[in-house]
Amino acid sequence: MWPDRRFLDLVGIEHPILLSPMAGSGTPDLGAAVSEAGGLGSLACAMLTTDQIRAGVGVIRQRTDKPLNVNFFVHKPPVADAAREAAWRKSLAAYYAEFGIDPSTIPEGPGRLPFDEAACDLMVELKPKVVSFHFGLPEKRLFERVKEAGCVTMSSATTVEEARWLEDHGVDAIIAQGSEAGGHRGMFLTDDIAAQPGTFALVPQIVDAVKLPVIAAGAIADARGVVAALALGASAAQIGTAYLFCDEAGIGPIHRAALKAARDDQTSLTNVFTGRPARGLLNRVMREHGPISPHAPEFPLATSAIQPLRSAAEAKGSGDFSPLWSGQAAALGRGGPAATFTRELIEGARERMKMLAR
Amino acid sequence: MWPDRRFLDLVGIEHPILLSPMAGSGTPDLGAAVSEAGGLGSLACAMLTTDQIRAGVGVIRQRTDKPLNVNFFVHKPPVADAAREAAWRKSLAAYYAEFGIDPSTIPEGPGRLPFDEAACDLMVELKPKVVSFHFGLPEKRLFERVKEAGCVTMSSATTVEEARWLEDHGVDAIIAQGSEAGGHRGMFLTDDIAAQPGTFALVPQIVDAVKLPVIAAGAIADARGVVAALALGASAAQIGTAYLFCDEAGIGPIHRAALKAARDDQTSLTNVFTGRPARGLLNRVMREHGPISPHAPEFPLATSAIQPLRSAAEAKGSGDFSPLWSGQAAALGRGGPAATFTRELIEGARERMKMLAR
Repeated sequence: MWPDRRFLDLVGIEHPILLSPMAGSGTPDLGAAVSEAGGLGSLACAMLTTDQIRAGVGVIRQRTDKPLNVNFFVHKPPVADAAREAAWRKSLAAYYAEFGIDPSTIPEGPGRLPFDEAACDLMVELKPKVVSFHFGLPEKRLFERVKEAGCVTMSSATTVEEARWLEDHGVDAIIAQGSEAGGHRGMFLTDDIAAQPGTFALVPQIVDAVKLPVIAAGAIADARGVVAALALGASAAQIGTAYLFCDEAGIGPIHRAALKAARDDQTSLTNVFTGRPARGLLNRVMREHGPISPHAPEFPLATSAIQPLRSAAEAKGSGDFSPLWSGQAAALGRGGPAATFTRELIEGARERMKMLAR
Repeated sequence: MWPDRRFLDLVGIEHPILLSPMAGSGTPDLGAAVSEAGGLGSLACAMLTTDQIRAGVGVIRQRTDKPLNVNFFVHKPPVADAAREAAWRKSLAAYYAEFGIDPSTIPEGPGRLPFDEAACDLMVELKPKVVSFHFGLPEKRLFERVKEAGCVTMSSATTVEEARWLEDHGVDAIIAQGSEAGGHRGMFLTDDIAAQPGTFALVPQIVDAVKLPVIAAGAIADARGVVAALALGASAAQIGTAYLFCDEAGIGPIHRAALKAARDDQTSLTNVFTGRPARGLLNRVMREHGPISPHAPEFPLATSAIQPLRSAAEAKGSGDFSPLWSGQAAALGRGGPAATFTRELIEGARERMKMLAR
């Protein structure tokens, strides 16, 4: 039924559809729905405490006993730089004044949590079928414990070099994240965003470079994209932004409205929200203060300075300071219940494959 | 045999493979080979005089009587800006000194020629099956004459907005040029290169937005890419960089060697060679002086200042100052005679379509 069963057999799922882990926007309900429909659902943990991760996995396991992907960021904890933080906040001073915010009251905080000992302990205990990482891999000792627990491991590559590195370091499958993808670039061996390959270029080159199954990601939003990903040699397709349109997505009305109005040519990579390049719908702070600023604090420290501006603007119904994460194909999103959308992807892909061979 | 016959029937070709027009690198032999193999060959005229265009079409017609695409740039002739030119040359002073070049001896010149009255007269006389444009469309009077002569017209869109504009202005088919594509971006309603959609995002969104047949371009380099383009809803696939590997391509040994060593993550859009963003393999002048410089003269005037540096460096066997045009999928290029490569694309695509439906 599917042309390449390697990834399906590796993780024990029926259909080559993965839900992109989306920290802050994915929900246990969304993850459970995709897994139960025969794809691979996910729980994104970068913004969750270990208690929240435990609870999230618990909710999903109440809804489905099918395989699940639990995803972590693996950035190095940043070294705080008071001078850089102060300069960054100073550069935002006009915005603070506009919203009547006293910047001295803004707490510093991590914004995103990396995979650590406690998270590793939890994975060893809960043993989800898949544990995946973004920004490379965790330290070897933690990575080995996850593998020894029997979990299938994956990580994202944004270049052929990163894919080879991941294969050499023992992952079981590679997500080829094309430059169209929404949210954070998984890049970890390069910081040249201008040279990041698009999905169409990246997928076949990674397929040729590694022996592992490759999952395509970036601008896959409907059945056409699923078939195109398979045609390029991917074993499966990972879909993020299109699932944000679904009922179970954990996004507020501002992000949802922005996605519904999205265009192909109105996204950009930006570092102003977290300190690392991530793709979102262009808004005021990206246009005025970025989209890439050389002054943004190290990831994820940049998060705290923007947060009160986001809250104040959102309270007025504005997404001017919100990270409106989106890939370049949001305009293809349709929504509905995630189970229905997943089935539409599967049936649509089958029909399209038959149509191509006609 | 092919899922969508609209473009094939429109221009009277057998297979959905187009040779990207590549000014300076395409040759009549290359164009003839692709047309004769059942695809649509092209002659890129942006760097040719009308006499050279006439001669080129003549050579192709000696080799094949099948349909041909004759392609033109349609930029507005630039207004020379002496101060800007002087500042640009001053910024290159260290390079001129390095190569012992006296910049006062560098002739100013247009670099690329736009479609004009004389070119239009020639098209009306020669009546190639297809006349295509890059950077929008020529002035209405000239465009209408081409259409009245019976030529099928095409132009490139880099966004949905540009595709809609082209449809509204009467073209017969639209090339969806994803950001991975090598050479000049066809962009004409936007100058935001950071927001340019990748092929995977752009093609289905343009397919949904217009009624015309859509040709996918950008990172299509093998049979996998052809099938993926068709899966995304394209009527055909346009291939450039991969044809530069073929025997008939008009590139020198430096460009050829650079393409053979190409990687997925070593290209960038640059304006230092001509004044407009175009994708090429990263080299010294792009890294040191760009890749995008706000000081480059208006397209195509930037061409003249770099030219003597290119010549001097190439004389020493270096591509440090050469426009090494390439898309992001050059590493997939294989070469051989263009007719053989075209047949491999066709046979490979058919096999892959059958494999997908299995």
